[in-house]
Amino acid sequence: MEKLYEGKAKIVYTGPEVGTYRVYYKDDATAFNGQKRAQIGGKGVVNNRVSSTLFRYLEAHGVPTHFLGELSEREMLVRQVEIIPLEVIIRNRAAGSFAKRYGVAEGTPLAKPLVEFSLKNDALGDPLIYDDAVLALGLASANELSRIKELALQVNELLKAFFSQRGLEVIDFKLEFGRLPGGTVVLADEISPDTMRLWEVGTGEKMDKDRFRRDLGGVEEAYQEVLRRVTGGPA
Amino acid sequence: MEKLYEGKAKIVYTGPEVGTYRVYYKDDATAFNGQKRAQIGGKGVVNNRVSSTLFRYLEAHGVPTHFLGELSEREMLVRQVEIIPLEVIIRNRAAGSFAKRYGVAEGTPLAKPLVEFSLKNDALGDPLIYDDAVLALGLASANELSRIKELALQVNELLKAFFSQRGLEVIDFKLEFGRLPGGTVVLADEISPDTMRLWEVGTGEKMDKDRFRRDLGGVEEAYQEVLRRVTGGPA
Ligand SMILES: Nc1ncnc2c1ncn2[C@@H]1O[C@H](COP(=O)(O)OP(=O)(O)OP(=O)(O)O)[C@@H](O)[C@H]1O
Ligand SMILES: Nc1ncnc2c1ncn2[C@@H]1O[C@H](COP(=O)(O)OP(=O)(O)OP(=O)(O)O)[C@@H](O)[C@H]1O
Ligand SMILES: [Mg+2]
Ligand SMILES: [Mg+2]
Repeated sequence: MEKLYEGKAKIVYTGPEVGTYRVYYKDDATAFNGQKRAQIGGKGVVNNRVSSTLFRYLEAHGVPTHFLGELSEREMLVRQVEIIPLEVIIRNRAAGSFAKRYGVAEGTPLAKPLVEFSLKNDALGDPLIYDDAVLALGLASANELSRIKELALQVNELLKAFFSQRGLEVIDFKLEFGRLPGGTVVLADEISPDTMRLWEVGTGEKMDKDRFRRDLGGVEEAYQEVLRRVTGGPA
Repeated sequence: MEKLYEGKAKIVYTGPEVGTYRVYYKDDATAFNGQKRAQIGGKGVVNNRVSSTLFRYLEAHGVPTHFLGELSEREMLVRQVEIIPLEVIIRNRAAGSFAKRYGVAEGTPLAKPLVEFSLKNDALGDPLIYDDAVLALGLASANELSRIKELALQVNELLKAFFSQRGLEVIDFKLEFGRLPGGTVVLADEISPDTMRLWEVGTGEKMDKDRFRRDLGGVEEAYQEVLRRVTGGPA
């Protein structure tokens, strides 16, 4: 099968049937737009399994996704989509770039979940973008934007419920959406500790890629613990 | 009269009556968040007169503003307002920070005018912000935001008409809004070649602060020419 794209965290191959892709999850980790790099042992396995479990859960609750199945420990079968070039970030508490950008203390609760967009463009540093600019640049239609927001908030409610039953609080996460050949918008890419902030309920311990970004230690252990809770069912 | 605040371009004093301010326009010019500094001879006079003329014109066309009158060549009398800490940018063509941020060629026309917000906070570098974050941070209410957008677009149509009669195209500009004691939202601050991009119709010559920002020369001449056209009436 043909290798189509090697990204920072995954490799995309042609799938067994037309219109499908095989996605291979690597152990490579990058942060700060590629400036910081390392390997996190077992991360690919964790992210594939966590993503697969979450996509199955979301599909079961009515969210359309690209997910077709797990092919192996590190490989997922997905529907080929045309990725909408937006990083869609859902925030329940101020953290990371949001906290820094607006001078708000990390962890400040947000009264309502926020849906934030960045232009998915590494060369430009994934700049923040707003609805009218998305439309002006022709990145998505108004209907697609409102569908993306609706799905993003639905995914947020489902993930909050899922993780709270497993002792983890969903602080924020990044989604990508794509268009199926007919134009239907579906959730794509991955949902994993690489793309979410998860804080242990009670202690506030970070159980996600921030352990790597901020040199907190116990990176591999945190990924494994998230996998254990995600696949282990409610506590 | 008491000096209340000295900014980069203006000085604010208490006014002759309670609830009024006297605003003095300086020749000081800064760019790139204060990193580049110089004096532009006569700029204060131009900006006071251009702003006063534009505020009068906008008031005459139904836009509520803080403007009460011209006190002298460099001084304006305004209503004291509580400034809403947003820089409201209206864009008719991609230019400046927008063009750079999204990798779009300077001058690219935008199908519809864009209204963009930045958090007015020099220490944070006036970061771009979006509606939901404005609400989450309590910077303005939803009603205020929609009123600001409505007024911004109305001002844009009026300014485009005004300047096109004077051979200048309005590329983009920055507005600030404030609350009167009763809560009414009015246009505040200034509208001048410091806060707009104006391109000569036909030649595309820049007739605004970009001559200073980009070391294009003829800075003072461009400010004087804008004043001449603004006060001289339709061509
Ligand atoms: N169903 C899908 N169809 C097509 N492309 C997809 C699908 N799901 C994810 N992708 C894309 O596949 C790539 C996965 O690789 P990876 O996530 O490693 O990229 P990356 O280095 O993070 O770069 P990017 O910033 O593009 O995500 C991403 O570009 C992602 O947008
Ligand atoms: N009617 C008004 N009532 C109260 N404040 C006003 C009014 N109009 C303008 N202002 C404020 O007065 C100040 C004018 O000073 P100046 O424009 O030089 O400030 P600045 O150095 O540019 O800083 P800023 O980034 O705050 O604009 C600004 O802070 C502006 O928001
Ligand atoms: Mg990616
Ligand atoms: Mg100012």
